[in-house]
Amino acid sequence: MKNVTGAICVECGHVVSEVDPNTTVCPVCGGILDITYDYDYIKSVVTKEDMAKREENSMWRYKEFLPVEDSQDYPKLRVGWSPFYRADRLAEMLGIKELYIKDDGINPTASLKDRASAMAVAKAAEAGRNIIACSSTGNAASSLAGNAAAAGMKAYIFVPERAPIGKVAQLKTFGATVVSVKGNYEDTFRISAEAIDRWGWYNRNAAINPYLMEGKKTVALEIAEQLNWKMTDYVALSVGDGCTIAGAWKGFKDLYAAGFIDKLPKLISVQAECTCPINKAAAAGTTEWETMPELTLADSISVGVPRNATKAIKAIIESEGVTVNVSDDEILDAMRILGRTCGVFAEPAGAAGTAGVKKAIEQGLIPKDASIVSVVTGNGLKDVNNAIKAAGEPLKVDPNMDALLDAFKGIGDPHQ
Amino acid sequence: MKNVTGAICVECGHVVSEVDPNTTVCPVCGGILDITYDYDYIKSVVTKEDMAKREENSMWRYKEFLPVEDSQDYPKLRVGWSPFYRADRLAEMLGIKELYIKDDGINPTASLKDRASAMAVAKAAEAGRNIIACSSTGNAASSLAGNAAAAGMKAYIFVPERAPIGKVAQLKTFGATVVSVKGNYEDTFRISAEAIDRWGWYNRNAAINPYLMEGKKTVALEIAEQLNWKMTDYVALSVGDGCTIAGAWKGFKDLYAAGFIDKLPKLISVQAECTCPINKAAAAGTTEWETMPELTLADSISVGVPRNATKAIKAIIESEGVTVNVSDDEILDAMRILGRTCGVFAEPAGAAGTAGVKKAIEQGLIPKDASIVSVVTGNGLKDVNNAIKAAGEPLKVDPNMDALLDAFKGIGDPHQ
Repeated sequence: MKNVTGAICVECGHVVSEVDPNTTVCPVCGGILDITYDYDYIKSVVTKEDMAKREENSMWRYKEFLPVEDSQDYPKLRVGWSPFYRADRLAEMLGIKELYIKDDGINPTASLKDRASAMAVAKAAEAGRNIIACSSTGNAASSLAGNAAAAGMKAYIFVPERAPIGKVAQLKTFGATVVSVKGNYEDTFRISAEAIDRWGWYNRNAAINPYLMEGKKTVALEIAEQLNWKMTDYVALSVGDGCTIAGAWKGFKDLYAAGFIDKLPKLISVQAECTCPINKAAAAGTTEWETMPELTLADSISVGVPRNATKAIKAIIESEGVTVNVSDDEILDAMRILGRTCGVFAEPAGAAGTAGVKKAIEQGLIPKDASIVSVVTGNGLKDVNNAIKAAGEPLKVDPNMDALLDAFKGIGDPHQ
Repeated sequence: MKNVTGAICVECGHVVSEVDPNTTVCPVCGGILDITYDYDYIKSVVTKEDMAKREENSMWRYKEFLPVEDSQDYPKLRVGWSPFYRADRLAEMLGIKELYIKDDGINPTASLKDRASAMAVAKAAEAGRNIIACSSTGNAASSLAGNAAAAGMKAYIFVPERAPIGKVAQLKTFGATVVSVKGNYEDTFRISAEAIDRWGWYNRNAAINPYLMEGKKTVALEIAEQLNWKMTDYVALSVGDGCTIAGAWKGFKDLYAAGFIDKLPKLISVQAECTCPINKAAAAGTTEWETMPELTLADSISVGVPRNATKAIKAIIESEGVTVNVSDDEILDAMRILGRTCGVFAEPAGAAGTAGVKKAIEQGLIPKDASIVSVVTGNGLKDVNNAIKAAGEPLKVDPNMDALLDAFKGIGDPHQ
């Protein structure tokens, strides 16, 4: 890989001059590594104009920015190049100048995590491994199971018992061996790490494997290209473990370093009020965070012990970003407004970013003439019980016009 | 619309020489109309090579084949251009030479019905209407709600009470007024028709509005282009109301008439054993069908009184197609094999096509050296309860290694 120069430890700054598919944490301090690139080389082999001509409508269109061998050839799901919508009616409702929705729920297994899992499967293939494992609040799990199944690999998945049934149904259908751990995400992570160590499976845990964030960063590369390389002032993301927002920031920085964009956006980091260890630390300007209870209904960001806190906090601070914490009610409200104004159906964690945008505008944390991209990280079909909670029940009527008229009268509908 | 010449009645052959967005059924006999095109004109304005250069990665890339004004400009969801996978491992498992999966579950509201709903919204916009309505077993409903919301229109939706919660959750989130009818699909269709008549809403019912099938046909246009215009011997589709298979056939015939493909595929029409009025009639070589009970768990194809039977039966017969009826167990099995070999998660009706392919091969209805495309019409997240039925529950373990080892032993997993 001529584009990759090695890796650097996020914690101690140790430089690793050669990486291979089995590279995990820093050999000195155990910290998470960050893959490093030769931007002059990248600039010399690809331009924005080249990119525009590519027919590859997936995350792999950005291969010069990715740590994979060019020779990769195995069955792949079509991950990435998700829809990007200008959301004028929602912008007007929120009182902001310019707003875009990046709908990453439109991915093969219906979440942004497909980007990381596709990368994990690619690196496992390079390493010649055929068993791959992870722990996850749900989306990383189903995406790993789906991407592994497509590639003909076996997956072992560890989820906390609270994972919603939609996510569990997905990964069972993909043929993964699924272990539902009677405990929280922290317990789940620990037992999966033990099992991975014991049996030498390829590790898809994003806080261990530095390549996964390189997959996640493709959401940023797409946003920039879909904006025709003219970045917005802000990009909003919901935050759990911290890998996604750190990945997005890496993507923007890569593009900036390679001269593809001439401005870096400020990050809007959105967590749940009850579970916001990363935002709490970032707001205080420190990477020292404290464990918090996992109480939000937005299961994908219900992470009390974030595994990638350092990278995420550094990203938020470096971008001169905004932190905003939202209540469960504000998340359910954002699900409704995304659906009603944009036709986008988000799971709670997927809508949390938009809830944060709304709140940040209301609180004056963002100027009203700003431009913003809000990323929807997962599809509402993942968690229909909470969608029903957000949206309410349908009218139930007998099959005749009188019953219908009565029902309409009951909700104040003008049709009589 | 220079490409459209008018319409012809499927029942009586009456020719309508001018159509507008409000055109519905045949003015003579009340039969369903079929939009007709000037293929010489289409040939003169677009070639296969032009198509390949288009950046529009949605169903609208085929505008010359679609009955819409060029000037259309309003917010749209990105419908179509869904993933197309070569499925070698599944082909090997089924004992067939060449098999492809078209995953139409990857659409904004997660089903093929988005294609028809996007068209309905386009025609409603042309007609200057802002309320649009339909009855549906679920997917047409949620797709109409989503596409209408994105375009800033209001939707009234009628679903039978058995519609799965995932679909209802979607359309409520999209802000539609949802009427759950205490009755079957037939009751639901009838009360929706009465309401549409009474209040003059734009009608998205595919058996009334001839434009909807023109949206659905885009799945065929994409399949052909994704095969580089070299058609397979067969295309398999699950069949409920009959609109989808009739739409696909229309698409292939359009391409054939315009010289884009030089061979028409044979259709594999798949219905549920307990609910197969269209297949029963087509197998007997007649368009006279009989009502059947609605008993399959594949809700989207559980249609005892198909509203587009004539078009569908004619398509199956004209293509020299194959009819195959599958049990619910065979459908659940197809969900598992699609997930495990392809990483594609289908709802029961979405997997039914593949169940039919498997059965048709087993029964010798299709030669083993054939090439086949199997269309997955909807995402498994729409109906997770049946996915759990298909795939089973996860292992439930306490968060320690001993518990994990016990659980693995229990399922015969080799890791100890």
